[in-house]
Amino acid sequence: MNTENSVGLVQTQFYTIEDKIKFESGVEFSPITVAYETYGKFNETKDNAILLIHALTGDAHAAGYHSENDTKPGWWDDLVGPNKAFDTNKYFVVCSNILGGCSGTTGPSSINPETNKPYGLQFPVFTIEDTVKVIKKLLDYLEIKKLYSVAGGSMGGMQAMQFCISYPDYVQSAVLIATTSRLSPQAIAFNAVGRNSIISDPAWNNGDYYDKTEKPDRGLSNARMIGHITYLCEEAMYNKFGRRLQNKDSYDFNFDIDFQVESYLQHQGQIFVDRFDANSYLYITKAVDYFDLASKYGSLEEAFSKTNSKFLIMSFSSDWLFPTSQSLEIKNALIKAKKQVSFCEIQSPAGHDAFLLEFEVQTKIIKSFLRNLE
Amino acid sequence: MNTENSVGLVQTQFYTIEDKIKFESGVEFSPITVAYETYGKFNETKDNAILLIHALTGDAHAAGYHSENDTKPGWWDDLVGPNKAFDTNKYFVVCSNILGGCSGTTGPSSINPETNKPYGLQFPVFTIEDTVKVIKKLLDYLEIKKLYSVAGGSMGGMQAMQFCISYPDYVQSAVLIATTSRLSPQAIAFNAVGRNSIISDPAWNNGDYYDKTEKPDRGLSNARMIGHITYLCEEAMYNKFGRRLQNKDSYDFNFDIDFQVESYLQHQGQIFVDRFDANSYLYITKAVDYFDLASKYGSLEEAFSKTNSKFLIMSFSSDWLFPTSQSLEIKNALIKAKKQVSFCEIQSPAGHDAFLLEFEVQTKIIKSFLRNLE
Repeated sequence: MNTENSVGLVQTQFYTIEDKIKFESGVEFSPITVAYETYGKFNETKDNAILLIHALTGDAHAAGYHSENDTKPGWWDDLVGPNKAFDTNKYFVVCSNILGGCSGTTGPSSINPETNKPYGLQFPVFTIEDTVKVIKKLLDYLEIKKLYSVAGGSMGGMQAMQFCISYPDYVQSAVLIATTSRLSPQAIAFNAVGRNSIISDPAWNNGDYYDKTEKPDRGLSNARMIGHITYLCEEAMYNKFGRRLQNKDSYDFNFDIDFQVESYLQHQGQIFVDRFDANSYLYITKAVDYFDLASKYGSLEEAFSKTNSKFLIMSFSSDWLFPTSQSLEIKNALIKAKKQVSFCEIQSPAGHDAFLLEFEVQTKIIKSFLRNLE
Repeated sequence: MNTENSVGLVQTQFYTIEDKIKFESGVEFSPITVAYETYGKFNETKDNAILLIHALTGDAHAAGYHSENDTKPGWWDDLVGPNKAFDTNKYFVVCSNILGGCSGTTGPSSINPETNKPYGLQFPVFTIEDTVKVIKKLLDYLEIKKLYSVAGGSMGGMQAMQFCISYPDYVQSAVLIATTSRLSPQAIAFNAVGRNSIISDPAWNNGDYYDKTEKPDRGLSNARMIGHITYLCEEAMYNKFGRRLQNKDSYDFNFDIDFQVESYLQHQGQIFVDRFDANSYLYITKAVDYFDLASKYGSLEEAFSKTNSKFLIMSFSSDWLFPTSQSLEIKNALIKAKKQVSFCEIQSPAGHDAFLLEFEVQTKIIKSFLRNLE
């Protein structure tokens, strides 16, 4: 544990929503347990809360450490803590695990109280709007009167936008990073092949594998490898790996790993299966594919005309999954809808992953944005 | 069968190389049967031959029809025939199936005469140089004294370059289309995930599945889906599919296919397994990953300094698999090596697939290039 500028030791907490929530599909569903963490303290008026929303495979553990011996802090620790971008000396910061996830919040791997078995495919398909409904219930329980800001990268940014649309008077500002108002067909294609990889793994067994010895690890691992190609970019891959060989000077002339880039992807796939559930991957990518603000509200301008927040949008120059052009679409629609919006394209060679890497510049921009709200 | 400007009925022929061929790995291998087709006739001096080389999953059937009822002509029929780009009134055109393939030429699915069983992983790993050695043996057997031209798109272009380097005085000219002198780490990554998809399919069974009921169709299908994403491009996907749903007006809220792009990819995956062998996919993508002229010969300039051909290079503006920048690398190295080279970037929204689609402009450029050689 590195205590410098850290929120220090933190614990994941749990809140169970007992009331049924009506999903976009029409299904009414409960109970939903939500895993969440908080950092910093409420002010007297309870209006200094900032909601952070994680990306596809994240969790509630955004900052700090879970134990004294913990070497790996939360996923956005560089941005969350005393004097950091999301300054825990000033703000009460909340982060929760997504509906359908596998890191504490109810999802397909959770026990269905009606059957005492994991839901598997009995879990209802949900949308980004549904995930936001669940978060709102948590914030109500935490007695947060109004959000000072909601911030998220990638899928977290989608949820942040939906939050501003669903609860316009509840959100003072939103920080949207490396996100999009709808996936391109190419991005849908990558998700579809990832899902196909899981579904075509015989061990997936129609989603019913939780009590089996063999789990759909191969399919899930392959899906993760495909994902990782899209999180990096050509330039990042040249910088990280080039065509360098992995622990050898010449080709092996067999089907073992030859190149560093192969080794990296295989490693990413292998470690992923230890922390993620294949069914959660199916459900969450489906919610992401379904997200389409323009289609849902008539136009992007219509969608944002419902909001009442100030927006900060950041994109990264080398992000080809959710490229700058998609952030500009959001910015332009907000301007048309007469909303206040700041936009910045950050020059970075890190691809989509940049929102988890480029901390210095993000810190400056976020700090300045939040300060100007005061 | 549409006989207009067609080479008409053609037959795949076979030639078996009995002599051992030494592969780059050091392995000496025989026998190799090569499947090939020819169109047009020799001139008296037998120096009017043009060699066409297919891409990753192609075959020897470049033009014409296999029967009167055949509705689908060869893969480059629009470019090969009387008065077409590769004019069969003037040239004797040859196309063969690649070493390691599964469309007539000896590959991992062929019977190993020593065991009377399919080779499977006993088949030696080969390189692009090895595939070119095999083609040269075929051309010698056909008594072709000199090639008027060698032409290929994508992997076919790699082989064409290697042919010019391996047999400099044998090749008068080369047409390199949508190709590269070495794969980027991103392109290697896509191939690696495709191979991983096959290898992690339990039915692959370490390459030994030919006498089994279940074949690694799921893994191969998934690999093909990944490939297809790279053959198209963002723009092509928007044009072809957008975010349109497949045969429905609203989301299904299950894991069936929702979007047209998903349906397209799944269909491409499904039809692929009927015509392609999973082990061939492993071997051929490995040969492509290994191809690296600069690394092999010291530099790209060094590599091309060995050649004695005139070059035509064509790239496509929307090709992100083998982008124009990689064609420019080839062009610039050829110029440094003081070789004669023409280059054209063709504006096309079709992505890498454009070399199989943009016939009108390719025809004009190829015709003019071949005429100017006379």
